[in-house]
Amino acid sequence: MSRLDLTNGKVEMAHGGGGRAMAQLISQLFARAFDNEWLAQGNDQAQLSLPAGRLAFASDSHVVSPLFFPGGDIGSLAVHGTLNDLAMCGARPHALSVGFILEEGFALAELARIVESMAQASREANVPIVTGDTKVVERGKGDGVFINTSGVGIVPEGLDLSGDRARPGDCILLSGSVGDHGACILTQRESLGFAADIRSDSCALHRLTQAMVAQVPQLRCMRDPTRGGLANTLNELAQQSGVGMQLEEAAIPVIQPVQAVCELLGLDPLYLANEGKLIAICPPEQAPMLLDLMRARPEGQAAAIIGTVTADPQQFVQLRTRFGGNRLLDWLNSEPLPRIC
Amino acid sequence: MSRLDLTNGKVEMAHGGGGRAMAQLISQLFARAFDNEWLAQGNDQAQLSLPAGRLAFASDSHVVSPLFFPGGDIGSLAVHGTLNDLAMCGARPHALSVGFILEEGFALAELARIVESMAQASREANVPIVTGDTKVVERGKGDGVFINTSGVGIVPEGLDLSGDRARPGDCILLSGSVGDHGACILTQRESLGFAADIRSDSCALHRLTQAMVAQVPQLRCMRDPTRGGLANTLNELAQQSGVGMQLEEAAIPVIQPVQAVCELLGLDPLYLANEGKLIAICPPEQAPMLLDLMRARPEGQAAAIIGTVTADPQQFVQLRTRFGGNRLLDWLNSEPLPRIC
Repeated sequence: MSRLDLTNGKVEMAHGGGGRAMAQLISQLFARAFDNEWLAQGNDQAQLSLPAGRLAFASDSHVVSPLFFPGGDIGSLAVHGTLNDLAMCGARPHALSVGFILEEGFALAELARIVESMAQASREANVPIVTGDTKVVERGKGDGVFINTSGVGIVPEGLDLSGDRARPGDCILLSGSVGDHGACILTQRESLGFAADIRSDSCALHRLTQAMVAQVPQLRCMRDPTRGGLANTLNELAQQSGVGMQLEEAAIPVIQPVQAVCELLGLDPLYLANEGKLIAICPPEQAPMLLDLMRARPEGQAAAIIGTVTADPQQFVQLRTRFGGNRLLDWLNSEPLPRIC
Repeated sequence: MSRLDLTNGKVEMAHGGGGRAMAQLISQLFARAFDNEWLAQGNDQAQLSLPAGRLAFASDSHVVSPLFFPGGDIGSLAVHGTLNDLAMCGARPHALSVGFILEEGFALAELARIVESMAQASREANVPIVTGDTKVVERGKGDGVFINTSGVGIVPEGLDLSGDRARPGDCILLSGSVGDHGACILTQRESLGFAADIRSDSCALHRLTQAMVAQVPQLRCMRDPTRGGLANTLNELAQQSGVGMQLEEAAIPVIQPVQAVCELLGLDPLYLANEGKLIAICPPEQAPMLLDLMRARPEGQAAAIIGTVTADPQQFVQLRTRFGGNRLLDWLNSEPLPRIC
């Protein structure tokens, strides 16, 4: 089999054609980078021996533009995104799949950079990419690369986390500052005329969540506020649980460069996407312990208690502003930025 | 929440934006059609109670063009494709995920038709679609709709099917005629000037495979010859197992309209994609029983023993032609048709 030209080569239609060219791409790029026993078997599925327990199963497609940004790229984002969806129910992630949809003409060097980034994120998380699929579409029918990652994990015995379990009186915790990923992508996409120096917060949260559920199994739910940001995600949870929420603006961490970009463009950081943050809701008695535990880890060092769950048949999420007023955090029609993840 | 206009509406960027518009699409279209307890929970992952056993995990993205064709559409194809990847290791499929990548401006009526087709395929297979994700890309950055399906299943105790297990002397069985899907897509795409009336063979094979592994647990491997067709798939298996193969052309079923289209266009049906066929390799003693069992089911009624595994360090797949000669079935660079699945 000839060598793939990872320096000057381009994606060709044949790379998705089920013959030698596709086998070459898989063996010389994907299987080499993701290197594990399941991919080495070369079957169309992976067979995994998992510990006993409920299976968590999640899937996320990624179409972020641009493909590369400070703090990550579509590859690391795709790994973190699905790991985090698994982690939010308390599961320990065990394996990921990857489905590439490549556009004809895409540089193999860029693809290799993305694949290496996925491999690194997978190694750091200690969760292998065990199966996958590659399709190629004609020039102008895609946009470089789209990546689906799906994943499986095992939920420890005795846990039952779900977005419909928030109860009035519960505390709402947030693991760190909001808006970093959204503001990062925004500054990359627009010509803002200044170097905003904002990095995406994209990271894997499963080690943090495993520590949380081990110490505080009474947790009601966790969710990562990705597209739609903190505000839309809290509205989702309020609706699922049939409750209201009262937040304290002063308690919600926003880093200064994100605040500055938002002020410049008239955006609200509470509606911008995050890719390495989580919301946790727990009974008030456990909140101080949970907060300490989150702050003790790097992924949660800026964690804060940002509000409480209220009894509200209208399921309003409200924000007490720094000036003492109360503002409705409405559920918007959409994230302000398309293709944020 | 307002009503989605499924008659005249179009996909908008907001439908992938993580706010009300996306929630509307999920609740009024996806969750309604796929209707099950996991989607109804509204979490970012599904939690499944599965029987004990090894987990099979597979993923496939689908970019077929055109989206609708005789015998199916991208929706049913996406369900069958992943079910079949799970089935090929003998697993019983338990759940699927779906990731949509939609192009802005795509008609919601067409999306609804595809979703209903997925729902029907999922019901017929008795495998629910339990979790998913929706992204939207700008007009001209996609092609209507791309669909990733991933799936999980459980492998019955004692089975060990893998493409590296074929041994010299083994029999090679095929479940039915080859080239139907490829020829169907081809006739839809080209203006052939005659009504070829070829339907895709897209169908779910997991009931057939479960019957096969229950009766013949000695099975070495199964694989569905999708992209690249029978010839490329057998070459893959020969390489994985380090063996050769000797096929009998006269034993390989090809329906007359497929043969006619292939002759007209100078194509070989052995290289055309199939979406409802499988190759099975087993020790010779079990072959007659396996063949009877396959023929007793509708998915396998045209099953045949098409050849034997040989000892060949060059790993050649050879075909004894109807005229008595021997022809090398080479591993081609690519499927002749792009975007076949």
